[in-house]
Amino acid sequence: MTLPSLALTLDLLGTFVFALSGGMLAVRRSLDVFGIMVLAVSAGLAGGLARDALLGAHPPAALADSRYLTAALLAGLAAFFGHRLIERMTKPVMVLDALGLGFFAVAGCQKALLYGLSPLPAMILGVLTAVGGGVVRDLLVTEIPRVLREEVYALAALIGAGIVVLGEHFSIPDALTVTVAIAVTFAVRVLSVWRNWQAPRAPGT
Amino acid sequence: MTLPSLALTLDLLGTFVFALSGGMLAVRRSLDVFGIMVLAVSAGLAGGLARDALLGAHPPAALADSRYLTAALLAGLAAFFGHRLIERMTKPVMVLDALGLGFFAVAGCQKALLYGLSPLPAMILGVLTAVGGGVVRDLLVTEIPRVLREEVYALAALIGAGIVVLGEHFSIPDALTVTVAIAVTFAVRVLSVWRNWQAPRAPGT
Amino acid sequence: MTLPSLALTLDLLGTFVFALSGGMLAVRRSLDVFGIMVLAVSAGLAGGLARDALLGAHPPAALADSRYLTAALLAGLAAFFGHRLIERMTKPVMVLDALGLGFFAVAGCQKALLYGLSPLPAMILGVLTAVGGGVVRDLLVTEIPRVLREEVYALAALIGAGIVVLGEHFSIPDALTVTVAIAVTFAVRVLSVWRNWQAPRAPGT
Repeated sequence: MTLPSLALTLDLLGTFVFALSGGMLAVRRSLDVFGIMVLAVSAGLAGGLARDALLGAHPPAALADSRYLTAALLAGLAAFFGHRLIERMTKPVMVLDALGLGFFAVAGCQKALLYGLSPLPAMILGVLTAVGGGVVRDLLVTEIPRVLREEVYALAALIGAGIVVLGEHFSIPDALTVTVAIAVTFAVRVLSVWRNWQAPRAPGT
Repeated sequence: MTLPSLALTLDLLGTFVFALSGGMLAVRRSLDVFGIMVLAVSAGLAGGLARDALLGAHPPAALADSRYLTAALLAGLAAFFGHRLIERMTKPVMVLDALGLGFFAVAGCQKALLYGLSPLPAMILGVLTAVGGGVVRDLLVTEIPRVLREEVYALAALIGAGIVVLGEHFSIPDALTVTVAIAVTFAVRVLSVWRNWQAPRAPGT
Repeated sequence: MTLPSLALTLDLLGTFVFALSGGMLAVRRSLDVFGIMVLAVSAGLAGGLARDALLGAHPPAALADSRYLTAALLAGLAAFFGHRLIERMTKPVMVLDALGLGFFAVAGCQKALLYGLSPLPAMILGVLTAVGGGVVRDLLVTEIPRVLREEVYALAALIGAGIVVLGEHFSIPDALTVTVAIAVTFAVRVLSVWRNWQAPRAPGT
């Protein structure tokens, strides 16, 4: 498998997993099949669309290549027909979500660097790519987004994006940087859920 | 009436009707005159603005031509002064909203094809154009957007956009395709409300 | 101090103040340190990001220059460590917020004119720049945005943007126009809070 096809595979897998989270939320909220599809597509594509609109990447990757939409719609169908099965697999879903978080943070940051952004803004855009879909998903059903409620979510994405920036700075081969960045984002996120890490609240609240 | 002026007329009518729905929601929520104007402008313009930001159409049509804003502000004024009259005309408002849905779905999909998008992404962008204003309108007053709650809303827009794609594929004259697409979107939406069509929910929920 | 450095100073101050409002809201909602940072960055940068995505200014100013992000993150830290002190200074925070409103409305409208927009759309984009961060901030914690609830908020920004348009039309020197526009926006907003101005609601509600 060549690197571009690996990257695309991971990107589409990330889209699928985030779209699945959108579809599952829609099922839990008793939305009909169209509501499920709308939420799946929103969750799967919004992060990348926001990134590309800000970078001026026209048309956005998620609209230039039909496979992104296809992945999101398939995830919506999977949620519609398979929600009882998927509900029982919360652990696999969380694990896939953490992988999606890693890949989107890395891909978003890399694309931002490619478009000439400085390290700090590129990292923030990586985080936006990774958490954007989930934010839109939760807002559409008027829930406070998970990125604000979960302890270590944006932080895991930020760490992954930071590794991309460091790799770029020290001219480390892309394949190595990407692998490490995704692995670390994944590990931080999964460990934080598993060990129930608590981030500090403001003193005196 | 030439075709471009017909298209612009319908576009401005769509903006007016969606803005009216925003203004009416603001009145029902007891917002003041400025809140009404903000919600009218948001509902009337957000769908087209999102479409143009994603396509890279700069400046967006709704900002390049002052008539869009004028239409939205007039709708806000109409809601402010005429809300009691309009409230009694729920049927005409629903009918105009269905017409706006049709025109925006068609215009959004056509513009996306013009910018080189593939059929499926172009259809999705048509749907986004048609439902975007309503999503922003409902989110601003923290309601779950109508597109997630109403049975056949995004679907009607999707069918209209699909007809545009088919018309393009078979090189059918634009005027015919546009007319049929708007008429079908309108008919599907109005019929679904009139006959109270129910879309399936996920099995076992 | 030259004019560009004055403009940048005010811009960064506006970013800082809006980010501070985001951070303080996050503290009040008992979010952890990462939630505070996410809300601070969202509130500080969203208005300018939306403006630049619509104008096609790529990359957006808030991502092209790391100082915007730095200002927002510092504001998040200030909210985290200093929220009890800041809470006691509601008057200074409101005053700084009014100044931020003025500067963002003016800067947004000026940039829109520079990109060739007509007066009315340029004014609306100025308002969007000024209120956008607050809208995103409030939506993220599922509150109805302040711009819809507060009597004279969008209006103050609109007046400031209108002065910019008039100044441009009559070829008045930029420095004078900008100063007057910021001062008037600031004065209208502060007076409206101080005197508790009420805007009219729709008749018969």
